[in-house]
Amino acid sequence: MRAALDAAAAAGRAGEVPVGAVVTRGDAMVAVGANAPRALSDPTAHAEIVAIRAAAAALGRDRLEDCDLWVTLEPCAMCAGAIAHARIRRLYYGAEDEKGGAVAHGPRFFTQPTCHHRPEVYAGIGEGEAAALLRGFFAARR
Amino acid sequence: MRAALDAAAAAGRAGEVPVGAVVTRGDAMVAVGANAPRALSDPTAHAEIVAIRAAAAALGRDRLEDCDLWVTLEPCAMCAGAIAHARIRRLYYGAEDEKGGAVAHGPRFFTQPTCHHRPEVYAGIGEGEAAALLRGFFAARR
Repeated sequence: MRAALDAAAAAGRAGEVPVGAVVTRGDAMVAVGANAPRALSDPTAHAEIVAIRAAAAALGRDRLEDCDLWVTLEPCAMCAGAIAHARIRRLYYGAEDEKGGAVAHGPRFFTQPTCHHRPEVYAGIGEGEAAALLRGFFAARR
Repeated sequence: MRAALDAAAAAGRAGEVPVGAVVTRGDAMVAVGANAPRALSDPTAHAEIVAIRAAAAALGRDRLEDCDLWVTLEPCAMCAGAIAHARIRRLYYGAEDEKGGAVAHGPRFFTQPTCHHRPEVYAGIGEGEAAALLRGFFAARR
């Protein structure tokens, strides 16, 4: 989660909402992603999607059954769906997202009967620092 | 929808689940996408995501408020989320997806109170041909 928090801070310095993600496989980091929809002109470029795409490209396959995802914020519906498509084994996330989250809030995607893959979910990892980054970012823009 | 159906057929010939999508702006086609998670080693490479990313890149921005999306199959949660993030104005889709759909089925994403953007939705456009492509594809694999 340290690397995900560092990626989140880098996103914030670049003027993007500070969220970072890392895909790991065993003890190895396979890919790091920082939230970058504006920089990349890509509405899908959330940290999780960037990290999952990079990990899948690095491993040369579209399923990451042996990989885990670490992300500083509760995933939205788009990212929860991508996590299921990628067959991510374990999801670790930091701060809760009452507005846009889709794991513990809103559609609670992994609890839907139509959800075809449910990772193990661990919430609150690095939550304090992840939430502080987001609070600082939005306070500076007000 | 004709171009989306052609993209779906091309995906099927390439061994991918036959789904196609097109982003339009006024009368112009901005981008076409075909489902390609296997070919691209990218679990996020659904037709909608491919088309939305290409359209955003072509227009040089991450919001497509003035664009519409045409897709041959009801979008999943990942794609519905991406449609909301991209601020797509109108969504036209073909076949229903009882298993993985997230617009009229499962999480019904656009009806969730936490959904921050709801496109106008038109279902059943080109449904017969879209569903026949999918039936043919899965029948051939059994």
